Amino acid sequence: MSELRRDPLTGRWIIVNTDEPDVPGDFEIEAQTLKGGTCPFCAGNEKMTPPEVLALRPADGAANGGGWSLRVVPNKFPALRIEGDLDRRGLGIYDLSNGIGAHEVIIETPDHTRTMAELTQQEMEDVLAAFQSRSLDLRGDPRFNYILIFKNQGIAAGASLEHTHSQLIALPIVPKRVMDELNGAEQYFGYRDRCIFCDILHHELEERERVIADNKSFVCFNPYVSRFAFETWIVPKTHRSDFAGITPEEIADFARMLREALQRMKQSLGNPPYNFIIHTAPMKAHDREEYHWHLELIPILTRVAGFEWGSGFYLNPTPPEVACQHLHDVKL
Amino acid sequence: MSELRRDPLTGRWIIVNTDEPDVPGDFEIEAQTLKGGTCPFCAGNEKMTPPEVLALRPADGAANGGGWSLRVVPNKFPALRIEGDLDRRGLGIYDLSNGIGAHEVIIETPDHTRTMAELTQQEMEDVLAAFQSRSLDLRGDPRFNYILIFKNQGIAAGASLEHTHSQLIALPIVPKRVMDELNGAEQYFGYRDRCIFCDILHHELEERERVIADNKSFVCFNPYVSRFAFETWIVPKTHRSDFAGITPEEIADFARMLREALQRMKQSLGNPPYNFIIHTAPMKAHDREEYHWHLELIPILTRVAGFEWGSGFYLNPTPPEVACQHLHDVKL
Repeated sequence: MSELRRDPLTGRWIIVNTDEPDVPGDFEIEAQTLKGGTCPFCAGNEKMTPPEVLALRPADGAANGGGWSLRVVPNKFPALRIEGDLDRRGLGIYDLSNGIGAHEVIIETPDHTRTMAELTQQEMEDVLAAFQSRSLDLRGDPRFNYILIFKNQGIAAGASLEHTHSQLIALPIVPKRVMDELNGAEQYFGYRDRCIFCDILHHELEERERVIADNKSFVCFNPYVSRFAFETWIVPKTHRSDFAGITPEEIADFARMLREALQRMKQSLGNPPYNFIIHTAPMKAHDREEYHWHLELIPILTRVAGFEWGSGFYLNPTPPEVACQHLHDVKL
Repeated sequence: MSELRRDPLTGRWIIVNTDEPDVPGDFEIEAQTLKGGTCPFCAGNEKMTPPEVLALRPADGAANGGGWSLRVVPNKFPALRIEGDLDRRGLGIYDLSNGIGAHEVIIETPDHTRTMAELTQQEMEDVLAAFQSRSLDLRGDPRFNYILIFKNQGIAAGASLEHTHSQLIALPIVPKRVMDELNGAEQYFGYRDRCIFCDILHHELEERERVIADNKSFVCFNPYVSRFAFETWIVPKTHRSDFAGITPEEIADFARMLREALQRMKQSLGNPPYNFIIHTAPMKAHDREEYHWHLELIPILTRVAGFEWGSGFYLNPTPPEVACQHLHDVKL
């Protein structure tokens, strides 16, 4: 069982792998290239993963058999375990909890050779609908309070398998970055009685200096305070704090916008490793007028130095206005 | 001139290089190995750096000539510029400032072949005394409010030159991570009327499960809430919020403890890239009863994945208790 620990200084929670700790010598493995050999996410290898929790396949297909176009399975090496009661307690001046949570993998396609940028519109819609469906299902579990949906593409971005997939982690606690956003949004709302994200969208759509593209429901832009070169956000035009409340029409528009963003990034930057993460409200307060869900997409182009993780003060070599020009000018 | 921009959501400041932005194609350069050729930090190449602001050499030696054992020079490619008045202003809903600041490099030795772990006790004391001396000097400049002292060792840690050096950046603003620590420490103090760092030291020295080593003035331990595998902190036993207030006796003890920590890390983990950063109080409130300066040292053993930067929620594969055993058991 892993452990959740809370930093008494900053309120940050971490997961510590107390089960099978990495010791000196284990780390070189992580620097190697992506594992070759038999891929557990490929069609025909369904038995290599834990049993699926969701799959798209023709109605006559058997669960955990072939013929699927998308699968969601529990992570074989989960950061958190689904079984057991939540046990929060103190330890001297520290706080901890046992590592209860869900850790699932969304296998976006049975095809090993394609990246997420190469998914069809229908496939991308299916992936986003799976994010929503799993979120709604896990919300029923009173032990959880946050669902983190993210993707690591490429080794430099932390991926351990090449076959395109996203991940979902249901957590009993709210992560620090989300708490910071919630607090900031609340302060802004208290002062101005408006959602800060709605104001940012208004500003960006008027100025158009950092807008890469937009459609009926979404805006894709490089935020004014980009921590990373070519950092890109996709924000829904309709105010909603909760990703899982997305409508089918919005899913189609979101899929279009995310495909476009990934394709532009791929062409402009030469298929870089990247991460994205969906920022949404905590489950127990998922209808908030001051918060606004969105997706943050970051290509890994430079190393984050000690200066940056240690200070929370980022040095970005590419102004978002310049990044936007390059991404906007890509011919698709 | 670069620009400082403030995130209206989280209060985070970033530096954006608006002068000579990196564009697609520039980034591959950063993935290359450390530059070979003539090293500007080596003895004999003093003319390759901007003129020194501090140096240790025999009294009869000429400034910017040879014979030195330590030099501090302005960074040739500074993130911030020293000249000009601070100009803070609004831009719609955003806040920005011109990129005023100091960015200096501490060349720890003229010898290209040694790492910081291999400095002698005297050399390490000189480096730490240089940190202090530069801090005290820059404190006289009313435009600055924070001094960040840090080191990137190895490419994976963000170093661009191999020759061992540390860096100092004087900032007009207080970085987010420091603000978070200050706020957390203040809350704790308000509730308990005690410094949280003093309480942590007390707890750790009593329990000894995570203490790697200690001497008269310093404790070296793996924090209970380590974000990274083998994260190591060095904390002074005497409560002081301000690194620059360190006494000569404490500098000697600090040098001993830092050398020992680096040597243990080198032997246990096979000379990994690492970062360290000194956390100290802001200049304008440098005598605080609730804050306690310290050094955070992080070996780069795994990739930080999107999950982590996006959520502020870290997954640590090695419990600090296990890390401590390994570091403690190293035969020096």
